[in-house]
Amino acid sequence: MSTFTVVVLLSSLLLANANDFNSFIFSGEYEFLDLTYPFDNFTIYWPEVQRFIFTKKLETNLDDGAWYATNDYASGEHVGTHLDAPFHFAEHGIKVGDIPVDKLIVPLIIIDMRSKVNDDPNFVLEKHHLDHMLNDNFGKPCAVLVRFGWGKFYHDREQYLGLKSDGSLNFPGISAEVAKWIVESYKNVVAVGVDVASLDPGSSKDYMVHQILLGAGLYQMENVNFGNHTLPDSGCLGIALPMKIAAGTGAPLRLVAMCPKQVPTSFD
Amino acid sequence: MSTFTVVVLLSSLLLANANDFNSFIFSGEYEFLDLTYPFDNFTIYWPEVQRFIFTKKLETNLDDGAWYATNDYASGEHVGTHLDAPFHFAEHGIKVGDIPVDKLIVPLIIIDMRSKVNDDPNFVLEKHHLDHMLNDNFGKPCAVLVRFGWGKFYHDREQYLGLKSDGSLNFPGISAEVAKWIVESYKNVVAVGVDVASLDPGSSKDYMVHQILLGAGLYQMENVNFGNHTLPDSGCLGIALPMKIAAGTGAPLRLVAMCPKQVPTSFD
Repeated sequence: MSTFTVVVLLSSLLLANANDFNSFIFSGEYEFLDLTYPFDNFTIYWPEVQRFIFTKKLETNLDDGAWYATNDYASGEHVGTHLDAPFHFAEHGIKVGDIPVDKLIVPLIIIDMRSKVNDDPNFVLEKHHLDHMLNDNFGKPCAVLVRFGWGKFYHDREQYLGLKSDGSLNFPGISAEVAKWIVESYKNVVAVGVDVASLDPGSSKDYMVHQILLGAGLYQMENVNFGNHTLPDSGCLGIALPMKIAAGTGAPLRLVAMCPKQVPTSFD
Repeated sequence: MSTFTVVVLLSSLLLANANDFNSFIFSGEYEFLDLTYPFDNFTIYWPEVQRFIFTKKLETNLDDGAWYATNDYASGEHVGTHLDAPFHFAEHGIKVGDIPVDKLIVPLIIIDMRSKVNDDPNFVLEKHHLDHMLNDNFGKPCAVLVRFGWGKFYHDREQYLGLKSDGSLNFPGISAEVAKWIVESYKNVVAVGVDVASLDPGSSKDYMVHQILLGAGLYQMENVNFGNHTLPDSGCLGIALPMKIAAGTGAPLRLVAMCPKQVPTSFD
């Protein structure tokens, strides 16, 4: 076989692969679901944390008549839909800018707890809730998203955080036991996310889940916005791209799921 | 065929598709290239624009010994690797939060002009440079990235912007003619990006490219970071996820390309 032939063959192979991949995007069999809250006046912030501030700077017609508009913004890192880097709770953990992209684009495992939570702010995800997963083998890197059904309260900050007059917070979360189990049993889980303001339950004082997961090098996603989307337990690809704040302990996150389109599975 | 059979068949189809798609990620035939500059003290900012400011807030051991660190940040929207929304230069254009995700995840067309630019800050991309593309049919939505080779100057802001003592800026850009040509001839191009601080040449006073492209509803990407990556002219998938600033005229952008791995194409 001549060098030329090899070149042509390999080029064709590459082209075929590329076309195969991009063709998925336009096959009509997938849809992109944006699991991100917008940054605006409703953006959730933790007590005593710098909230998201948006400042209109210019919005005008220039001398030549052209329109021109630009703004400034400011925020704490852990506000709205955001990512926690290991350094947030682990002195020797990596920062946002150091998380490799191939840990940010991984298949999603969805744990839908809505019917068990039933709007109870004291719900804590315990290991016995996950018995059905004991035999699952997450053979490839993946991110786990726990859905408590808390998004319905997002636009009422007091209810979403469960803020009480004594200053306490009250919303569902994950138990330390589950965090340990994920780290010890599922070495391929690279991230855990939730649709509440923290992976630890609102009432937590020691943030053990943060300490365990971030301490083990996983990253976290908080205030995930499921909206009204129905996501299959598996089969979606998660695309979790944070603002690349080099030394960030966290950063605003754009989280998108690429999922098989939900088609009717029965015609009767 | 019974309803049950249909359900099983359709479920199998969905599962097969999902596995096919996620299997691409782990096939070893693709790689993720991060085309984003980190936000840090080197982050490029336009004269008279609010630069990126990073403020360490807490970095300490808590009372119980646990590590805890968090920071604040502030910036103009059009700083570092960022996205321009149509509203930046078009009064009735959409804002960052309104750009649909299926316009943000599209195949990339790479126009590599490095050998023609040859480090000349006065280079302007004209239509005759693109004769080889006249017969191309961008049949599906795509984003065009123009590579001027300017990243080598990124860490010297004066050289990257071509700042002169008279206050002028000098770096390569795109001509208004090319912008018109893209808008009129290639209806499927949804975005244009560059590895300089603006799509218009540094010397531009009227920002005609901004007016034309954003006026036509495209979005722009500026300060794209190609690094030392070699990208094929086509075949990569672009994943351009901006921070979801609802009313943003622009926003920090995380830009990732999923590309066929570059293998040797000759063994001689």
